[in-house]
Amino acid sequence: LNSRLPAVGTTVFSRMSALAVQAQAVNLGQGFPDFACERSLIQAVNEAMQADFNQYPMMSGAPVLRQAIVAKIASLYGHQYDVEREITVTAGATQALTTTILCCVHPGDEVIVIEPTYDSYVPAITLSGGVPVLVQMETGASGYSVPWAKVAAAVTPRTRLIIINTPHNPTGSVLRASDLQALADIVRGTDILLLSDEVYEHMVYDGARHESVCRYAELAARAFVVSSFGKTYHVTGWKVGYVAAPASLMAEFRKVHQYNVFTVNTPMQHGIAAYMADPRPYLELPAFYQRKRDLFRAGLQGSRFELLPADGTYFQCVRYDRISQQTEAEFAEWLTTEIKVAAIPVSAFYQQGKESGIVRFCFAKQDETLTLALERLQKI
Amino acid sequence: LNSRLPAVGTTVFSRMSALAVQAQAVNLGQGFPDFACERSLIQAVNEAMQADFNQYPMMSGAPVLRQAIVAKIASLYGHQYDVEREITVTAGATQALTTTILCCVHPGDEVIVIEPTYDSYVPAITLSGGVPVLVQMETGASGYSVPWAKVAAAVTPRTRLIIINTPHNPTGSVLRASDLQALADIVRGTDILLLSDEVYEHMVYDGARHESVCRYAELAARAFVVSSFGKTYHVTGWKVGYVAAPASLMAEFRKVHQYNVFTVNTPMQHGIAAYMADPRPYLELPAFYQRKRDLFRAGLQGSRFELLPADGTYFQCVRYDRISQQTEAEFAEWLTTEIKVAAIPVSAFYQQGKESGIVRFCFAKQDETLTLALERLQKI
Ligand SMILES: CSCCC(=O)C(=O)O
Ligand SMILES: CSCCC(=O)C(=O)O
Repeated sequence: LNSRLPAVGTTVFSRMSALAVQAQAVNLGQGFPDFACERSLIQAVNEAMQADFNQYPMMSGAPVLRQAIVAKIASLYGHQYDVEREITVTAGATQALTTTILCCVHPGDEVIVIEPTYDSYVPAITLSGGVPVLVQMETGASGYSVPWAKVAAAVTPRTRLIIINTPHNPTGSVLRASDLQALADIVRGTDILLLSDEVYEHMVYDGARHESVCRYAELAARAFVVSSFGKTYHVTGWKVGYVAAPASLMAEFRKVHQYNVFTVNTPMQHGIAAYMADPRPYLELPAFYQRKRDLFRAGLQGSRFELLPADGTYFQCVRYDRISQQTEAEFAEWLTTEIKVAAIPVSAFYQQGKESGIVRFCFAKQDETLTLALERLQKI
Repeated sequence: LNSRLPAVGTTVFSRMSALAVQAQAVNLGQGFPDFACERSLIQAVNEAMQADFNQYPMMSGAPVLRQAIVAKIASLYGHQYDVEREITVTAGATQALTTTILCCVHPGDEVIVIEPTYDSYVPAITLSGGVPVLVQMETGASGYSVPWAKVAAAVTPRTRLIIINTPHNPTGSVLRASDLQALADIVRGTDILLLSDEVYEHMVYDGARHESVCRYAELAARAFVVSSFGKTYHVTGWKVGYVAAPASLMAEFRKVHQYNVFTVNTPMQHGIAAYMADPRPYLELPAFYQRKRDLFRAGLQGSRFELLPADGTYFQCVRYDRISQQTEAEFAEWLTTEIKVAAIPVSAFYQQGKESGIVRFCFAKQDETLTLALERLQKI
């Protein structure tokens, strides 16, 4: 069988998680919490099942959940989406991202992707027949940043879409207002669309605000904005996310969505909608994760790792060049099998596997898990 | 935005369900049960959530569920799939179908589709850049049948995939052993792949057996076989299905799957796996639905509708030419708004909207619902 994705193997997340299990390592690789979600969230889903919300929901998602999403976006970012026409619930954020790309990228269209980049974007572009145009982030004293002049230079008449991601996986960097202004300057007057991956929207630290594309009317008017409940509510396995977009864009999204998954798990949608009535779980998330970030960073002070800034997400990137000259993949494997702490090589987020001597740890773990991992990492 | 699917509107199922709600009609249109699933199934999912099966499962699906699927296929159809490499759990059958098409159809490849046909196949082929080649079923005294000579004549060197569906939506026809032999004769010696949509596998009536492609080693060796738990366990909104395929084909499926949805709801997978330990729910399904089919058919005897055979699925097709000369869409709309019984026009399952004077009713309903609908239909 002639492959549609010849360059693709099993994702680095699956591979490192499998290795972590095999090596009995503490798994700080794949991004997911090792603690339980709130019992009231489970209870809400159970109640939805008991109340027989078990048949197909509307194709766009359960109205109660779309209403809750619209209310949340309005209250946090001041943008009012239309419940009927501008929100679609998806089977996780990955499905939202891939469906967006499939619905708007035609064969030969160019899509600007900023590296390091989440590993699903480029295969989705390839499937759509589009051409990924890669621009690399720069690293300085204040960590990773997007070189907007290079993004501007990458634009051609064939550019159909620019994909951004803030807070950013894997680097933990966040876009600031000035970044979004630079982006607005680039797309103004063009018909370039935006795909904004904001699945870590509730994990921005040190009092900074999340610069959602939804805050900028000029950008929101051309953007598909993607988020995820799995990350916000500590249930990465539930696979419920959503996309918000202006009605004309959403109409195209839904054409593909309805034939890709048709709809999304009904009782999960109703349970999440009920749980969203209380905003505290997401309002309290920055403080919750900032404490874990600080605990993890404090533990690595004085180790041979060099900490990069971690302004958002639940990831901490570290340089290891004082420890080893191995490639990132080799080093992550060695960490996993020998030190018994799994990490993700940042090179996996580059198409050409760029080596920067950096690996990514996930700190969405119980304090005991982090402490155990730190004990092992400090010994290196 | 230049559409990737310009020919596509909202699915007929969504439209007719919305109209049914608006008209306060009995909804025999979109295929879903109006009765509750078993409480023990809900309980099993709740237990999985309580036991903290809430994070990402393996990309291919929870091992317990893949094991249960392999055991079921082996016991029913005598084919032994490999648990690790040959089963992938999907976010419903639609996602399995679309992902299969995306993973094996290259731009310009031809895909043979037998009409009337489920409405997701052709848009998925279009997205992949493939060319649908349509062959129409024939209707005779014994109902719909596949003209295999025409299928054979439609094969060209560009044929990449043939899609079959048994039991068949919307016609309720089922393939027999002779059909599968005819198909085997067509593909033997070629590199044509098969996609077998068997989501109604447990709804075959009158003592006939389901002719799964899995029963025929020669066919199974080149087939993606798709099924759905939503239909079997009366939970269409749970969106859990699977695909079974030889390891080499499954490797390509997973490349696309991992970037399309990555994984599927974890607690649902564990709950379904636990529930599958008892085979009775699916073993008893033919008798359960045959009784409803017979009740519904008996109720239409002596009406002005002409019953077509209904050998499988939970659909009953009827001719209405003694009642009206309207198009199927018009007649289904009239039935919904005036008679207060929603149906689906079979023309929606033809790319060119072929008119046969036939609409489809879904009999997966409580007896009271069917009785109410019959009272209304008998009066016409
Ligand atoms: C979708 S699997 C991995 C989770 C994740 O987003 C990450 O680890 O980067
Ligand atoms: C996926 S929505 C409709 C359900 C169905 O398969 C049908 O009614 O034919």
